[in-house]
Formats: sequence, C-alpha cells, structure tokens
Amino acid sequence: MSARNAFYAQSGGVTAVINASACGVIEAAREHPDKIGKVLAGRDGIIGALTEELIDTSAESAATIAALKQTPAGAFGSARYKLKGLDENRREYERLIEVFKAHDIGYFFYNGGGDSADTCLKVSQLSEKMGYPIQAIHVPKTMDNDLPFTDCCPGFGSVAKYTAVSIREAGFDLASMCKTSTKVFILEVMGRHAGWTAAAGGLAAERDGDTPHVVLFPEIEFDQAAFLARVDDCVKRYGYCTIVASEGVRNPDGSFLADTGNTDAFGHKQLGGVAQVLAQTIKSELGHKYHYAIADYLMRAARHIASATDLEQSYAVGRAAVEYAVAGKSGVMVTIERESDDPYRWSLGEAPLADIANVEKMMPRDFITDDGFHITDKARRYLLPLIGGEDYPPYANGLPQYAQIKGQLVDRKTGTDFKV
Amino acid sequence: MSARNAFYAQSGGVTAVINASACGVIEAAREHPDKIGKVLAGRDGIIGALTEELIDTSAESAATIAALKQTPAGAFGSARYKLKGLDENRREYERLIEVFKAHDIGYFFYNGGGDSADTCLKVSQLSEKMGYPIQAIHVPKTMDNDLPFTDCCPGFGSVAKYTAVSIREAGFDLASMCKTSTKVFILEVMGRHAGWTAAAGGLAAERDGDTPHVVLFPEIEFDQAAFLARVDDCVKRYGYCTIVASEGVRNPDGSFLADTGNTDAFGHKQLGGVAQVLAQTIKSELGHKYHYAIADYLMRAARHIASATDLEQSYAVGRAAVEYAVAGKSGVMVTIERESDDPYRWSLGEAPLADIANVEKMMPRDFITDDGFHITDKARRYLLPLIGGEDYPPYANGLPQYAQIKGQLVDRKTGTDFKV
Repeated sequence: MSARNAFYAQSGGVTAVINASACGVIEAAREHPDKIGKVLAGRDGIIGALTEELIDTSAESAATIAALKQTPAGAFGSARYKLKGLDENRREYERLIEVFKAHDIGYFFYNGGGDSADTCLKVSQLSEKMGYPIQAIHVPKTMDNDLPFTDCCPGFGSVAKYTAVSIREAGFDLASMCKTSTKVFILEVMGRHAGWTAAAGGLAAERDGDTPHVVLFPEIEFDQAAFLARVDDCVKRYGYCTIVASEGVRNPDGSFLADTGNTDAFGHKQLGGVAQVLAQTIKSELGHKYHYAIADYLMRAARHIASATDLEQSYAVGRAAVEYAVAGKSGVMVTIERESDDPYRWSLGEAPLADIANVEKMMPRDFITDDGFHITDKARRYLLPLIGGEDYPPYANGLPQYAQIKGQLVDRKTGTDFKV
Repeated sequence: MSARNAFYAQSGGVTAVINASACGVIEAAREHPDKIGKVLAGRDGIIGALTEELIDTSAESAATIAALKQTPAGAFGSARYKLKGLDENRREYERLIEVFKAHDIGYFFYNGGGDSADTCLKVSQLSEKMGYPIQAIHVPKTMDNDLPFTDCCPGFGSVAKYTAVSIREAGFDLASMCKTSTKVFILEVMGRHAGWTAAAGGLAAERDGDTPHVVLFPEIEFDQAAFLARVDDCVKRYGYCTIVASEGVRNPDGSFLADTGNTDAFGHKQLGGVAQVLAQTIKSELGHKYHYAIADYLMRAARHIASATDLEQSYAVGRAAVEYAVAGKSGVMVTIERESDDPYRWSLGEAPLADIANVEKMMPRDFITDDGFHITDKARRYLLPLIGGEDYPPYANGLPQYAQIKGQLVDRKTGTDFKV
C-alpha cells in the first residue's frame, strides 16, 4: 500500500501544551514516509476539513515544528464545533469524505477532549458505515482533566502548575502585608464542572498554615456559614486567608454561586465571577479587606510556567497516535498509564473510543477533605507528579518567543464550497 | 567610632523583588563590620520599630539571606503606615528615638515608594531636629514606577514582564479560538494612578496586528465610542481583539470606569473591575463573546517570571544604600540612572529625599499614541530594557522554593509598650 496523507486537527479549548502534541504527530509522521505522506492540519480544527482549508505542514520547517513544543495555544486554530450524529447530519460526514478523498487522507488525528473523542469515534466509523477507509486516533487534550481511562489529560499538568505557583506567590504577598492591608485573597480558576484545577492549587500548601488555606470545589455544595467561619478562623490564626475557588462553585440549590442575579446600571444581568461574590460576602459579613484575581485564559495559555511532565506527555501522546495508526489501529485514544506515584513513572496505553466518548471523569470524593475545604493526601499523591519539572520557552528582548506557522493551505480540489 | 546597628524596613505594597533589596542591604552590611553591627529588620515595616519588634537578621544564615533574592513579597513584613509630620505626631518620633537608642541604631534603610521616602526624610531629620544621630537612606521600591529622579523603580520591571508575557500568551489563545469562540479578551492590571503597568503590556505587540491590540491608560479619558470602534475594527481585521486595561481607567467626568454604581442582590454597592465593565459594554454594544482576567496581586508577586534586570537593580540599590551610609551620606534615595537604551546600560546615583517625598512621576504623554490606544516607540525604548532577562527561582516538586526567615526577635530593651 502506498503512503496516504494524514489529517490533524485541534479541538476545543486550547492549552499551553497542545502544540507539543501537534509537534509529536508531525515529527512522528515524518519518520514514516512509507506509510504517511503529508500531514494536513485543519485550519480552525475540524472546520478546516469541512471548508477544505488544509494547512500543509510539510511547508513548515523542522525548526518551526520543533518550536511548537514551546508555543502555547493552537497553532493551526482550534474550534468549538461538534459534529452531530451520522443520522442527524449525514451532510457533514459526506463532506468530510469528499474532502478526505480529494486529498487522499487515510489517517485522522484528533486532538481534543470528550466531545472531540465522540467526533473521532464517528470518523473512525466512516470506514464501516460509509465505506471510506480511514484510521482515526484520538490525541487526548483537556485542561479539565476529565477524560476517562487515561490517568491524566495532557494540558492539565500545566494549568495545575500555574495555579499552585500563582497561589503560593500570592500567599507570600498576603503574609507580608496582612498586618495593615489585605486580609483575604481569592484566586478564581477555570473548571466549571470538576474541581481538578482548584485542587491543584491545594498542592501549594505543604505544611500546616501554608497557602492556600481554603479550596472551593464545584463538587462540594457551598455552605456559606461554614465557609465564613473557616475564613475568619484563618484570619485569626494566620493573620490572613488565601483561597482558591473554582468558577463552578454551586449553591445548595445547584445554581452557580457566580450567578447572583445582579444587574448593572443599565439593568443588564451580570455574571460576575465567583471570586467577586465570595469577596463581597466576606466583606459584608466579616469586614475583612479583600483582593481577588481571576486567572481565566492566562492559566491555560501560560506556557512560560508549563509543567515539564505535562509537556513530555503531550508530545508523547502525539507521537504514539501516529505509531498506533501505522500499526493499523483505529478508533482508540492514546492514554497515559501511571505505574508509580513516587518516583513518578508512566507509560502509554490505549482505550477504545466507544467507551470514552462523552464520559466525564469526576474528581473522586476522597480527594477532598471531609470538611470540603481542602485536598487530601491521596489527591496530593495523584496531583504532585503532574506539575513536576520546568520547561522554559526561549526568550528574546525579555519576551517568550513563540512559533508562528506559515499556515500555507494546500490547493483546494473538491471544487465545492461548504458552509459551516 | 565603634560600629552601630542598622534598621531595615519594607514599606507599602510588596513586589516580586523587594527581598532582593533586603538581601543587598544585609549582605553589604555584613561586609562592613567595622561600621555596621547587626541589621535589625522591622517586623511589619516601620511598625516593628514602634512596637520594638526587631528581627535579628544576624540569626539568619547566609544561605537564607541569599535566597531572599529568589523570594517574592516582603520576608520581614511590610506595612501601609505613614508617619505623620513631626509637629503633628511627636510621640511617634520620640518612640522611634527611644527604640533606636535602646538598640544603638545609627543607620535607617527604608525600602519603599513615595510615601516611604517622606518617612525616610523625616527620620533623616531626627539628627538635627531631635538630636539623635542617625543616617537615613531610602531604598526605592514600587511596582507603580512613579518615583521621581530615578529612571525606573525596582519592582516595576517584573510586573512589566509579567504583563507583557501574560497578554502575549492570552493573545495566542484568542488567535487560535476566535473562529468559533471568544472574540475579545481583556487583561486588567493594577496601577490606579499611572499607566506604567498597562503600557508594559504594549511591549508584547512587536509587529502590526500583534497582541495587545488596545491598551487603556488612566492618563487618557475613556472615550467609549472610539474604544468600541477600535475593538470592532480589530475583530473584523484580525478575528479578535486583545486589550490591556489599567484598573484606573477614568470616565470623562474623572470617575473611575469601574465605579459603575452597580448594586448586588443585597443592595450593596459593587466596585467590579474595569475589565468587567468593559466586557459588558462590548457585549451589549457589539455582541462579541468576551473573557477577562484580573491579574491583581499575581502580577506583583510573580517571582517565577521576574525580570533579571529588575532583580539585579533591586539588589544593587540595597547594596548601594549601605555603601552610601558607610560613606557618611544621609537623607538621600538611591537612584537608577540610564546611560543608554540599546545596549541597555545603567548605573547608580542618588537624589535628595527633600526633593522626592510625595512627588509622583507620571507617564509622559508622548509615551502614548495620539489616538490614546497604544504605546509609542519612545515608550518602547524606555520600557523594553526593564523586562530584559529571566531569573528563575529554584523548584522542588514542581513548586518554587521561597525562603522563610526564622524571624527571631531581639530582646526588648525599652520596657515600654507602644500602641500603633
């Protein structure tokens, strides 16, 4: 069989290290010229496959591809775009086949989270259901760390490290100023459905009294009285209180704490952050001076403080996807398997996409202390290796130098337009 | 003359590198045992001098003192506490003399910003006005970069670097997701009175179209129509718009933009951040999906991404303060003098405290483009050297290892309590 081309796409929210997976896919593919021709990357993810905007990665130098390992976010563009089921939207699948056929694409590498795993599964079924031969391998990626079967998700270790480092630093700030200034600091972190990212902040507390003093999880119903009592106790005991709060903290009725029903001067409904709500509650009930930070995208883009472990795994899953495909596999996701906590050892494995698609892995309850305000030693053992090691990007003029691809598109061949 | 002890205190908002100045003071003092005995550090700044809580830095190992260079925030505690004038509050000055006399303190090193320079000046006048011989030298420090006479302020270069790096990374995130997701991102930065920190974010834009697309300064009256037009133009042109906004952006009537008069569900007035106000305005007027981050203390505590230039200068001004004192000087602040932009060369100088106290250096108007939305080349030439170089702290288990002092207090000698 002669070599066929590969399609690679980034999907969903980007991370500090998703480009390392792209690098892994492209570098590994270049080592198999007998099996894989060009790697064509979808511009803006799967949308590029539908619109036939395919970036020719063979036009990018080896140096640029290598530099992707040091570059945050999605170099080829990512998309929040979920293909519907085959029965509901046969048109999109027919278009995929049209484009894939026109460009002789025999491999599909999809780099994303749970929704993307579902898309990847559907593509893997094109062979059987629509008679188009293609091998589809899912390359896991999500800062949310919520994919099943894999021990952890590429992208998570770096947000985890960002969170732990940032709250530790803010804790030193509070400790030094609390005598006459701010008493309470809240760091709001992303992660609406699961508390993995907030939990990672807990790693910064290594000894009793260390920052953060309180971690708030979406998994734990917010108990305002208990929370305020805890904050006040910390202020009395340590002079200050530092808090990592997930944006997804919920009231006992299930509503988001951040969904306060506030309106602005124009009568528009506000969706202020959870940090703001917590801060104002603390101010009005306890009277403590507060400050808060909202990490938002900074945390998932922070390549400057990426976890070396996360980076290594992100690169490795990209490479492995190609090796699996070359070995004839399809319909699987590459997984990371933990062999030991300390010293941390891991290897790669695989899991069938049919079992993965749209399943969220929640944080185990025993990762959270009984009182609901911190992480347990078990969580610590799980999380700590994932933030291990530093891998700094190159700098020039004081600024990190991130790769920009040429992004040259291959000539269109289908002759038809497609609206997404 | 036999050696006399020195008093060192940290004052005002801390920075990622103020401890490097402490390290400079203590290390230099240890090199002059003929002139300087112990360095006693005020616990919680000047408050420690009033309450006679004096940390014995001679009890800290050379390794701990050296590690201060890598540790953010104020290791000895800082305070927002301004001494009133001598005539208004003679009691505090008499207490200072009582404590200084009891501990044979002949040198006063005060590490802070404009308010602190005023306090340092008053202490330097104790010799003349109250007959207590003491030499007072100001060690400059402020992330706000608003001290006069010095080319830049230790602490600023590191927040500048944090801001430029963070917005660059967020820009890569937006660029990769804007096709189907967020179109506008706002990074809110500290700096209520002057736009130095926001301006630093502008450094990330090296080529046309680079992030950030818009910078908002407190110095420029907010023009909502022009702002919205600019944002919309960026979204049309680049697919997205990235913004660095100073928390101190003001309406034409002088009020803070963030002071929206909103009330929460309990009727309490909200002081939401400027990012939130801008975001909601963009959403309601242009309909673009937004995200925003609020850096807050993370930016001034971010030792993990400190500027090596800033660190070097912070250490150097600490050392120089001691050398100046040993040379018999008093009533001066150490200054940084720029000798050339590129290659960047600087040296140390001094300025009389009488000229400095309570003078704020504003950002020159010609640092801001005529349209008010970005920095000029002149600003770039000034700012760029200040973020130069990286100096990473040591890590263990994936986390930065910051110094903790023993903080042993010397025995009290005055026998009297003093309430602050």
